[in-house]
Amino acid sequence: MSFTLGIDYGTNSVRALVVRCTDGKEFGSAVVNYPTGHQGILLDPRDHNLARQNPADYLFGLEKSVRAALVQARKQKGFDANKIIGLGVDTTGSSPIPVDQRNVPLALSAKWRSNLEAQCWLWKDHTAWREASRITELAAQHRPQYIAKCGNTYSSEWFWSKIWHCAQVAPKVFAAAYSWVELCDWVPAVLAGISDPLAVKRGVCAAGHKALYSDEWGGLPDKEFLTLLDPRLADLRDRLYSQAHDASQAAGRLDPVWAKKLGLPVGVPITMGEFDVHYGAIGCGVKEGTLVKVIGTSTCDCGVVSADKTVPDIPGICGIVKGAILPGFYGLEAGQSAVGDIFKWFVEGVLQNENLHVQLTQTAARQKPGQSGLLALDWNNGNRTILVDQRLTGLLLGQTLGTSSAEIYRALIEATAFGARAIIERFKEYGVPIKRIVCAGGIAEKNPLLMQIYADVTGCTMLVAGSSQACALGSAVSAAVLAGAHPDFPTAQRKMTSLKKIAYRPKAAARRTYDQLYGLYRQVHDAFGGLNKSADLSGVMKDLLTIKEAVRG
Amino acid sequence: MSFTLGIDYGTNSVRALVVRCTDGKEFGSAVVNYPTGHQGILLDPRDHNLARQNPADYLFGLEKSVRAALVQARKQKGFDANKIIGLGVDTTGSSPIPVDQRNVPLALSAKWRSNLEAQCWLWKDHTAWREASRITELAAQHRPQYIAKCGNTYSSEWFWSKIWHCAQVAPKVFAAAYSWVELCDWVPAVLAGISDPLAVKRGVCAAGHKALYSDEWGGLPDKEFLTLLDPRLADLRDRLYSQAHDASQAAGRLDPVWAKKLGLPVGVPITMGEFDVHYGAIGCGVKEGTLVKVIGTSTCDCGVVSADKTVPDIPGICGIVKGAILPGFYGLEAGQSAVGDIFKWFVEGVLQNENLHVQLTQTAARQKPGQSGLLALDWNNGNRTILVDQRLTGLLLGQTLGTSSAEIYRALIEATAFGARAIIERFKEYGVPIKRIVCAGGIAEKNPLLMQIYADVTGCTMLVAGSSQACALGSAVSAAVLAGAHPDFPTAQRKMTSLKKIAYRPKAAARRTYDQLYGLYRQVHDAFGGLNKSADLSGVMKDLLTIKEAVRG
Repeated sequence: MSFTLGIDYGTNSVRALVVRCTDGKEFGSAVVNYPTGHQGILLDPRDHNLARQNPADYLFGLEKSVRAALVQARKQKGFDANKIIGLGVDTTGSSPIPVDQRNVPLALSAKWRSNLEAQCWLWKDHTAWREASRITELAAQHRPQYIAKCGNTYSSEWFWSKIWHCAQVAPKVFAAAYSWVELCDWVPAVLAGISDPLAVKRGVCAAGHKALYSDEWGGLPDKEFLTLLDPRLADLRDRLYSQAHDASQAAGRLDPVWAKKLGLPVGVPITMGEFDVHYGAIGCGVKEGTLVKVIGTSTCDCGVVSADKTVPDIPGICGIVKGAILPGFYGLEAGQSAVGDIFKWFVEGVLQNENLHVQLTQTAARQKPGQSGLLALDWNNGNRTILVDQRLTGLLLGQTLGTSSAEIYRALIEATAFGARAIIERFKEYGVPIKRIVCAGGIAEKNPLLMQIYADVTGCTMLVAGSSQACALGSAVSAAVLAGAHPDFPTAQRKMTSLKKIAYRPKAAARRTYDQLYGLYRQVHDAFGGLNKSADLSGVMKDLLTIKEAVRG
Repeated sequence: MSFTLGIDYGTNSVRALVVRCTDGKEFGSAVVNYPTGHQGILLDPRDHNLARQNPADYLFGLEKSVRAALVQARKQKGFDANKIIGLGVDTTGSSPIPVDQRNVPLALSAKWRSNLEAQCWLWKDHTAWREASRITELAAQHRPQYIAKCGNTYSSEWFWSKIWHCAQVAPKVFAAAYSWVELCDWVPAVLAGISDPLAVKRGVCAAGHKALYSDEWGGLPDKEFLTLLDPRLADLRDRLYSQAHDASQAAGRLDPVWAKKLGLPVGVPITMGEFDVHYGAIGCGVKEGTLVKVIGTSTCDCGVVSADKTVPDIPGICGIVKGAILPGFYGLEAGQSAVGDIFKWFVEGVLQNENLHVQLTQTAARQKPGQSGLLALDWNNGNRTILVDQRLTGLLLGQTLGTSSAEIYRALIEATAFGARAIIERFKEYGVPIKRIVCAGGIAEKNPLLMQIYADVTGCTMLVAGSSQACALGSAVSAAVLAGAHPDFPTAQRKMTSLKKIAYRPKAAARRTYDQLYGLYRQVHDAFGGLNKSADLSGVMKDLLTIKEAVRG
């Protein structure tokens, strides 16, 4: 009997999960919140775009969560820490960290400890929106191929935008940084005792999705292009990496120092780090034809297409990267910038009463599709897919003097469902098959109303992943394959992952109404999102009233 | 020392006001709520469009309010009921009442008492929206001149729509009605003891604004046109009126029976009834160049232009009627379907806490224009002017995950200010001078934040009427002119009406931001309102973010 350990670095906490390789049974699990900042995030009251994280929290959380998970696992029959044969790591991203020549984050030194620019630049940091827009502009002009695979828009959340912004606003920090390492590459390197940034094995997941890396053009963007941005970035290129790897490789083997700290066997293999939702997709059983949706504060949608096929550039799809999720497959990533965050905003930010979630959900569940006459756009945090535009905002229309808060709450859920449908349709338009949708994340497990609305709006059955820790599980699955417990990913996924019994199937009557409403959503979406610059919206409010009257009878 | 009495029939109550003719000093005042229905309104739970009123409430409220006002006035030195030299009446409208051959409302007879169609059809009743749309259609085809002066759209709130709807849904009530009399004509007729509907002197205010009456085409719509609608309406035409009168005429003289009931001198003259806001405009000192805004749950805007001039048809302006407000002037009427109602909806309907008005106002007052990034349309109850379209709904855009309820509250106030500006600009475009704006109504008196925003958005100084009872005062002014206490309206207005000391003057910095925001409002307004059917809205959200960032600095 062998085990693997999945370590999942989320936005606010880190989780360790001990899993049995034969069947994926969870033997032990522990979560540790990052101690620094507001819920683990360093903020700047003067700039709501800023979100940083203290790298010390990653080390603290690593040791604490793994040891706690082992304590729990030891209580189960048949477990022994020596039976752990591999470690998997997934993290948020793009979350690059400036490091010194010994691969130590600048923020861990006394000199830079209190400097916000020297910390990890958390995925949700949007300070670099000007740089992102400039990269998009210059790439469109000089290297269109660079951004063709990320929806033709480079994001403020990504590697080069953030590093460039650091060079602009904190040139001293930039100068002090010998290299920059993504969190998902840094944690495995730490565990493997790698103390030279140039020796850190970088994952193609982060490289391909966030750093414009591709074998097609020989790795990272060329120096000529980087010089157009900023000569300092061209210099940095030599201190990054020339080759990135997929999950068939190991990032290294567990270093004795860390083996002792964690109470694990020395030398067990460590997976290449991937982003949380990518390993999460593996934990949900992703394969060709399956779309995995991780639904939480925001949403990430992942699919794979065999690397033997040709995948076209898909406008508005944030990333198409060979090997990013499963070796031998293109990994496709899309997402919605805010889902649970929108409901949270409405209930806690507007209504100022967090206890209302349950009551509003109950009341909203009694409403019929179309009954409120409302229509919303799900853009309170911009639109990731299919518009790739951070500078968009929310919209609600159709309100009368009788509109209730529960009706607005339902309209916001529906808006996120329409956003989900736009992504599915975009994939299908470009020949990516979607035969099955598996959902994971807190909302997928806890909100049947939302799941039914998603089924009715998209016309697809919504399945739910068996594990509540799909990301950590996926890391553990990857570690099991790496350690040789299973011959390949499909076998490992079949044995170690599962689905819950519940399935949300679309209902015909609701589908018909939602087809009409989605048509109106797309009219407004395309007009404000810039896809239609000569829009006729004169019928939208009237059509909503007509649907409302028809539904109310 | 002489006095007049103004009687003001509002939506929920009737007010009597005793005023001294020399200086407009208020000697006594009393309000009586209508006892029947919900806050005086008869509703139908199955049809939210329905709003009727029990005519018995009008008689009950008349006697009770006048007597109570006299009791109060008698406590003041120098007053005596015998010194009352005239009565003025204003009411809501279009509020037509089906009456029998003796001018008695059907609803006062045992047979029809409990029939909703036999009651007064209150102005806000929208059951006749299908008929309104059919009248608009047929008039556009056959008699475009009929609707050219009411924004090219006949409303469901108006005389013919309602009567036709009654004929359709309650043919027995329609058949039993010998005639239909507007509330503003009926109350003076009752006071004058007129017991034949054909002898009731009808006011040009209601006739011209709501019943398509004009001297231009010889009175009411011709029989041929009415036959196109419904032959029963053509028959009814003979039992209505052929001539309507302005406020230079008397509706009659006080009948001995009512003189006794009220404790007033027999035979004093009674003004022609006008709509509340029309006499309200007189009470606010309306004259050429002055726009009067009565700001309450909804808003009514009134202006006058000398009848010697030619006033063009103004698209979207609900009414341009000679003599409707002041004799010798065209009366112009515009309005917003919801103002206070929108704030009330947000605070009481959405936030579910009516106590929040004060706190939200205080917080909103600390925000700078443009700071929230929000933009709203003020259409929760449709748009009266300048789109004349009941089938429009509210809209809010620009929300992020940080948007607060106070920011939304302010955006809703600003939306109504933008709606107000659209009306002012429409008047000016067509040569109606607006040099001065006088506001009345609860909101004008109690909400300095709103008043300052209106000044900043419109670029006009906002003055506030001296009297809190501008409508009743205007009725009393009209009665004073009729009774000969003053030689003409300008003199009477100068003596009897006043302004409060406060004046809200536009501030340059706020104006600049609001000019930008108004441009964006019009883009969205014109796109959803149908004025622009090939709209480019792709920049709206980005422009709002840019303004927000500039304001936040």
